[in-house]
Amino acid sequence: MDAIDKYAIIVAGGSGSRMGSKIPKQFLQLGSKPILMHTLHAFAEAEELKELIVVLPKEFHNYWRELCHQFDFTESHLLVEGGETRFHSVRNGLCMIAGESGLVAVHDAVRPFVGADLLHKCFHTAWEHGSGVAAVQLKDSIRMRKPSGDSTAMNRTDFMTVQTPQVFRINVLKEAFRQKYIPEFTDDATVVEKAGFPIVLVEGHYRNIKITTPEDIELAEKWLMNKHI
Amino acid sequence: MDAIDKYAIIVAGGSGSRMGSKIPKQFLQLGSKPILMHTLHAFAEAEELKELIVVLPKEFHNYWRELCHQFDFTESHLLVEGGETRFHSVRNGLCMIAGESGLVAVHDAVRPFVGADLLHKCFHTAWEHGSGVAAVQLKDSIRMRKPSGDSTAMNRTDFMTVQTPQVFRINVLKEAFRQKYIPEFTDDATVVEKAGFPIVLVEGHYRNIKITTPEDIELAEKWLMNKHI
Repeated sequence: MDAIDKYAIIVAGGSGSRMGSKIPKQFLQLGSKPILMHTLHAFAEAEELKELIVVLPKEFHNYWRELCHQFDFTESHLLVEGGETRFHSVRNGLCMIAGESGLVAVHDAVRPFVGADLLHKCFHTAWEHGSGVAAVQLKDSIRMRKPSGDSTAMNRTDFMTVQTPQVFRINVLKEAFRQKYIPEFTDDATVVEKAGFPIVLVEGHYRNIKITTPEDIELAEKWLMNKHI
Repeated sequence: MDAIDKYAIIVAGGSGSRMGSKIPKQFLQLGSKPILMHTLHAFAEAEELKELIVVLPKEFHNYWRELCHQFDFTESHLLVEGGETRFHSVRNGLCMIAGESGLVAVHDAVRPFVGADLLHKCFHTAWEHGSGVAAVQLKDSIRMRKPSGDSTAMNRTDFMTVQTPQVFRINVLKEAFRQKYIPEFTDDATVVEKAGFPIVLVEGHYRNIKITTPEDIELAEKWLMNKHI
């Protein structure tokens, strides 16, 4: 797999509203540096990437450049303007990739604990099957809500919680992103599935959390103290 | 609601295997005392209970009594023998409740962060509708696994992750637990639903975690330091 061109698109569209913070969560400092820098570092360490693409809302580009200067962050990356939704942001990132061959990983900026093993597995699975999407077993029972107000039990082993990285063959992801946007496109796997390609899941890990709430950042700080990243 | 008899059954059946620990997780020390003591304390503080019932595997009864002595734990409770599965454990606890009137909360021993507000809400909903089951919105996208090996996207807003407390009218829960056990009975709501009663969900909170993995206990310790319990 060493000869294959590998790209990564890191999507940082979050506005930070769920953190109760004015700073979007990808910029919150975790240990010695902002979360997004941890994530980029994890990717750069794990894989030889042809290009590391960061998609950020336009209004934060200067802020990000200042942060890079302030924290002396030198990991090479390409900064791209975010879109109206995650779909549009990923598509903007994808536009920066020339040609149709190779693999591309799409990853949430706020999942700094991705880990090299998981990233390798996703790339490998995508190379073999066209897609490799990190997902973990549900820990808790789930119920489906009914319009009547009550709810019905579901078999939790039938379901997986989707994470990122989501890796695809570039030709597959490009074809998928030529579709017209619909609100059901909440992640990249949904877009690719809608285009008719199979989605193959890769066993992720529970540590690969999406930092969304103040509880998450507390946990992340704790892990960092224990030098997990 | 003050005149209604209220009971709680705290189920501690875990063997601790997922914690990589020989001590079942309900006995792991969190701050100044074992997790189970935090949970019992939360219940005793929040509600005027007629009886607080603790279901534990028989082989840990003496160990628990020693812990109570060692930690000078004086919260009044009734110790009951656990069964082969969670279903059998809850049924053992239920057997200790005389009569058919009033409400009973079933709760995981390893959810010490339950909080008085959520417990009140579950009791109140069960009083009005027969059941009040804590549940939270899924944070991540989920996919359903297909026998072919690939997977299909689901609309996550249709699903809720079930927590405890799960509160029921005693007559409802007793009737439900007269059913023959089937492996699909992974929680009490499933048993009650199978008996033909509606399950009404109550908005839980993300802090009400089930301490299952080493990551969970790290987070719980962090919260404890910040005096959340």
